[in-house]
Amino acid sequence: MPIQEEINTSDRLSLARFLTQVENGDPNARSLLDTLYLQSGRAHRIGVTGAPGTGKSSLVNRLTLHIRQTLNKTVAIIAVDPSSPFTGGAILGDRLRMRDLAGDSGVFIRSMASRGALGGLALATTQLARVFDGAGFDYVIIETVGAGQSEVEVASLAHSTIVVEAPGFGDDIQAIKAGIMEIADILVINKADLPGVENTERALRANLELGYNRTITRKAGHMDMSTKAKNEDSQWHPPIVKTVATTGEGMSDLLGALLKHREYLENSGQLRKLESKRLESEIMNLLQDRLTSDWIKKTGTRKMESAIQEVVNRRWSPNQAVDWLIEQSF
Amino acid sequence: MPIQEEINTSDRLSLARFLTQVENGDPNARSLLDTLYLQSGRAHRIGVTGAPGTGKSSLVNRLTLHIRQTLNKTVAIIAVDPSSPFTGGAILGDRLRMRDLAGDSGVFIRSMASRGALGGLALATTQLARVFDGAGFDYVIIETVGAGQSEVEVASLAHSTIVVEAPGFGDDIQAIKAGIMEIADILVINKADLPGVENTERALRANLELGYNRTITRKAGHMDMSTKAKNEDSQWHPPIVKTVATTGEGMSDLLGALLKHREYLENSGQLRKLESKRLESEIMNLLQDRLTSDWIKKTGTRKMESAIQEVVNRRWSPNQAVDWLIEQSF
Repeated sequence: MPIQEEINTSDRLSLARFLTQVENGDPNARSLLDTLYLQSGRAHRIGVTGAPGTGKSSLVNRLTLHIRQTLNKTVAIIAVDPSSPFTGGAILGDRLRMRDLAGDSGVFIRSMASRGALGGLALATTQLARVFDGAGFDYVIIETVGAGQSEVEVASLAHSTIVVEAPGFGDDIQAIKAGIMEIADILVINKADLPGVENTERALRANLELGYNRTITRKAGHMDMSTKAKNEDSQWHPPIVKTVATTGEGMSDLLGALLKHREYLENSGQLRKLESKRLESEIMNLLQDRLTSDWIKKTGTRKMESAIQEVVNRRWSPNQAVDWLIEQSF
Repeated sequence: MPIQEEINTSDRLSLARFLTQVENGDPNARSLLDTLYLQSGRAHRIGVTGAPGTGKSSLVNRLTLHIRQTLNKTVAIIAVDPSSPFTGGAILGDRLRMRDLAGDSGVFIRSMASRGALGGLALATTQLARVFDGAGFDYVIIETVGAGQSEVEVASLAHSTIVVEAPGFGDDIQAIKAGIMEIADILVINKADLPGVENTERALRANLELGYNRTITRKAGHMDMSTKAKNEDSQWHPPIVKTVATTGEGMSDLLGALLKHREYLENSGQLRKLESKRLESEIMNLLQDRLTSDWIKKTGTRKMESAIQEVVNRRWSPNQAVDWLIEQSF
């Protein structure tokens, strides 16, 4: 059933339907997904992340408008709403603010609710970004709501990660944000017309200095001194950009910083290096899944169930159960 | 080399050395680990988690003293310090506060720094808890520092999870904490002698109500109505316990809540159900790892490397690379 052959990714409705197939892990999506992958590798993936209330969605909205107006490039937005284990639902209200972009055929917005495993979300986002890339979109913006693990995942998918802050946030939750600071390629202080912007900037700068020094020290452990000296010179220093998303202030600065970061990634060889690493771990994960599903197909689930019972009843250890299960497949 | 035969887990030095082997994933540890697993299943695992500054470590300290004095049971403490990707190091200062317990042979304290993958940390913590359980400790307290993913992991290892709050924390970071609230079996407001304790209690209670209602709604989706009605009655309602760890105030209430939760887990059948689920996912992970390492042993790493190159150069998609890799192993 080569259902995929009918899909034309330049038709919006067709593309939307295909994205749903991909998100659902539909096996029929595979052959077009393969084709699109071979055409991919041109889009710039931008991650936008930060705490709720910093104006992330408005910023994505404005940045997209700015890219459309000044560069005339196409933009796909993937809004990832990791459903909190607490609410069980996605926060889709922010999407309403995107209406400025609704009539523009050079913009495609896709909301994605996380369901279940974090690994599942990362895989689905990777594949959606790949579809947009292969379908010819120049920029793919991945926006995450919330804090924690999802930020780190975005950073590992994006070429450039923007961390959004706002005055009044974060002075008392530094410890929590320490990890988020490190993933930033560009720091944005949004709502820069509010009081307290100087304090926020000072705090961020202090954190950046600290982070920069530690990174150098840590990285130095893995390389000889000559490489170290070379890398210190070519290190990327995350700039701090002040914006007011509601008025569009600072958008040229932000786009300028993004273009500069892209240039840095290309010239330093980081782009290819990071891409290789990302693909390697993707291939390893796919291989693991395939080996396991092949094993289950061959051995059946009944043996698995009885092994679990032996472990629950403390007659076997988990390792002994796996020894037995591996023997069963021969 | 049956090095393990010499290890006597009732000797503290011997036990400490074995824990290091286990933490390092030393293959020599396996046979004793298997034996200890078969002896395990009696200890009560307690997770203690919460933001920095809430007095978590002092609380663990006091609770341990209280268990020793009133129940005369033995306690092992695993202090997990997930090294932030930012600092790269573990926060071990808190351990100094444990000195009250240092001379007591019924208490064993183990600090663990996280290195690398989160999955690795969860596995190591599981195994350490299992060693203490098999070695005869009655309570295993797992304490995590920081916020985010580590809390969720603790919750999945522990039978009873205590979330620690303090007045003045959390009124402005509710969104971040929503996920943490849901994992709580018992909520502690520590530093309950500070002003603002009523506000904290009100906020927690509002969050609990919200969370309880959503859980019911969500769980109902997976069961028929008769089961639903039954489960609503036997649902656990997380109590809020006020403590002052520095003086010991509230420790009887906290221990009372823990014993009540244990009883609930046993009577409702949850204890066995959760344990089965946990062991099932552990066995699946072990099986995946084993299948992958067996595959690599058989096929070698060179083919993997050339497949990655084909994908990086966009001649194959990741899925096509895995198809080829699987073929190579026959």
